[in-house]
Amino acid sequence: MLTSLQSALSRIDQLSRISDSPLYLVRTFLSPANLAAASLISEWMRDLGMEVSHAADGTVRGILAGANPSAAPLLLGSHLDTVIDAGSYDGALGIIAALAALEEILAENRTLPYPIHLLAFSDEEGIRFQTTYLGSRSIIGPLDAETLAIKDAQGISISAAISGTGWHENATPIHYSLGECRGYIELHIEQGRVLEEAAEPACVVSGIAGQSRLCITLTGRADHAGTTPMALRHDALTGAAECILAAESLAQSKPPLVITVGKIQIHPGASNSIPQSATFTIDLRHPLDCSRDNALAELYLQFSKIATRRGLALEWIPVQENPATPCDPTLTNQLLHSLTAVTGSTALLPSGAGHDGVILSKICPIAMLFIRCRDGLSHHPDEYASPADIGCGIAILSHFLKSLEP
Amino acid sequence: MLTSLQSALSRIDQLSRISDSPLYLVRTFLSPANLAAASLISEWMRDLGMEVSHAADGTVRGILAGANPSAAPLLLGSHLDTVIDAGSYDGALGIIAALAALEEILAENRTLPYPIHLLAFSDEEGIRFQTTYLGSRSIIGPLDAETLAIKDAQGISISAAISGTGWHENATPIHYSLGECRGYIELHIEQGRVLEEAAEPACVVSGIAGQSRLCITLTGRADHAGTTPMALRHDALTGAAECILAAESLAQSKPPLVITVGKIQIHPGASNSIPQSATFTIDLRHPLDCSRDNALAELYLQFSKIATRRGLALEWIPVQENPATPCDPTLTNQLLHSLTAVTGSTALLPSGAGHDGVILSKICPIAMLFIRCRDGLSHHPDEYASPADIGCGIAILSHFLKSLEP
Repeated sequence: MLTSLQSALSRIDQLSRISDSPLYLVRTFLSPANLAAASLISEWMRDLGMEVSHAADGTVRGILAGANPSAAPLLLGSHLDTVIDAGSYDGALGIIAALAALEEILAENRTLPYPIHLLAFSDEEGIRFQTTYLGSRSIIGPLDAETLAIKDAQGISISAAISGTGWHENATPIHYSLGECRGYIELHIEQGRVLEEAAEPACVVSGIAGQSRLCITLTGRADHAGTTPMALRHDALTGAAECILAAESLAQSKPPLVITVGKIQIHPGASNSIPQSATFTIDLRHPLDCSRDNALAELYLQFSKIATRRGLALEWIPVQENPATPCDPTLTNQLLHSLTAVTGSTALLPSGAGHDGVILSKICPIAMLFIRCRDGLSHHPDEYASPADIGCGIAILSHFLKSLEP
Repeated sequence: MLTSLQSALSRIDQLSRISDSPLYLVRTFLSPANLAAASLISEWMRDLGMEVSHAADGTVRGILAGANPSAAPLLLGSHLDTVIDAGSYDGALGIIAALAALEEILAENRTLPYPIHLLAFSDEEGIRFQTTYLGSRSIIGPLDAETLAIKDAQGISISAAISGTGWHENATPIHYSLGECRGYIELHIEQGRVLEEAAEPACVVSGIAGQSRLCITLTGRADHAGTTPMALRHDALTGAAECILAAESLAQSKPPLVITVGKIQIHPGASNSIPQSATFTIDLRHPLDCSRDNALAELYLQFSKIATRRGLALEWIPVQENPATPCDPTLTNQLLHSLTAVTGSTALLPSGAGHDGVILSKICPIAMLFIRCRDGLSHHPDEYASPADIGCGIAILSHFLKSLEP
């Protein structure tokens, strides 16, 4: 008989072989591999004695009724889709670790005080339709007409995809309203290097950072690199360089603020021409919206000063704004208690990346657990979490579930 | 009867209409327009009583014998080719202003003490074969086999172009050996904004700056923009930004040093990824080779420190090295004397751009005169030098020629 960890590791391996490409791992919303993964997860849920159903959009739910089947449920879960050329852990681990924790509890013949709903969301990464969280968004309310009309690269709309696979035929709507659930708990790999650096196998998440994305353009004038003395220049790139360093200093001075310039383009872009314009992106994240707003205001002030001093025009274009999602203090403390019981640690980290909890937080309290991943690598075939750390994650979830009070 | 200035302005206009494209001005090595321009310039030379010949590569020479036809000649000239979508003054003005100065001298029935050879070079910009100075390089020695084999975008080699136009049939080799000439004098638009800022119509050139071109790559690691705290980052772009500002500060502190970063590319170049690598160009120019070498050494030291402190790998690849071309002190003083006589100024500037004098300096002393151009604009259809400034340039050249002693 396999231990719950052994069966979890085997399941991670099995899921990682279900792909739409023979060359790399990829599963997208309602793709054949996504539905095959949903079927396999359904089987695992049934093996555990769960009552299993699936929604038309490919999300799967397993219900463990517990002592009081009519009580408000606690949701567990993660997503079963992947990015292109993905690793085996992002999403899959959250579903499989929850299954393993429930398996341990059932093996000990325990009955949980209220229903556990384990959810495997059909889409979080948003690869096929370039819109994220389709699975969890469907769960908290039907997708609106505008979203349903979004088309993939082949011109197939989301609504056509939902009605086109045959998967919807024996589907059951899965829906939760505000206040209907006790909460949503997700285990996920960290996708960063903080736990590795701190030599911690796991931590609890304090909240999911809010994010501001901007597009900045500085415009000066193109001049000849040989004939224009330094004092006569209005170089957009040296101005951008000063802004980039100002952003870095600001973020360094206010952790856990992070600011990243990930793209830059200059015009005309010739080695012997002084750059006329430089356009770059800003990705700014903080777990507190007020701190994010303050950082944005400070950045704008600094960029304006730099542009003015250098005789450059500044264009400041907000591109996207995602508010922060704080984790629920009660659930988070319960998870922390289990983390400490299992690892001795009290590590609490913000999540810089988005997760399905962002959506679920609209209808119920949420909490998250992060597992260390090697070298911070994610969205990559070399993504890896050690069996020991996965075992630790399962043990924390299992401890948390055992501690649930009626 | 037109004044020499009026006829110069008319000639600039006439030359600017001779183009290989109906849409913009372009004349390249041995193109139909380049040969048509050479023919027209030959006519103007003949009208002045010069003995005219042309080389197989399209360079034209007019000789004014002077009092002692067997004495060593003084060379005047500039280039008749243009960049793509060019202005009317770059190159053309140097030939036409020299013609105008000679015209004034002949109109006054003066005889110069020794021969003047006026040269209109077939290629300085290097547009067709991506190799500059073909005209002046041919003049100081035949082009080597390697150069003759270079092909244009249509696959035509330089040697095939030379023998393919018919232009070579009644050509005369034009060649000068080391020590054969008294010097080479060229008038050119400044192609920068220094004279405009200083409100000076013209200046003498102290020398043509040497140039170092480099390609720099900083390599750190790509990480997730949301999940990687500032302290754990090895961001290649923030490292590059610090290098760009260090280069700017160094150049600002050591005029007339100029350093330009004109191109930058980062990888992976996604708004939510910390840049793994940043590759950028350095264009560093100084009229003194030792100062250029010192600046390069200082830059390398600073870049190394920045890379080490940030945990980045530094790749420092020299791409091209052009030594400085000092102007001849005697000829330059004579030109300065004429500048002062005409404008009252003693303005002396280094040239940051290359000119045919770079090549001619290998066989004789050189000196140059710069004329103010509007807004520093060059290599652009809006390139412009005012009639007053052109008149000033002609007057300086004419004063210089009249001052020649046997």
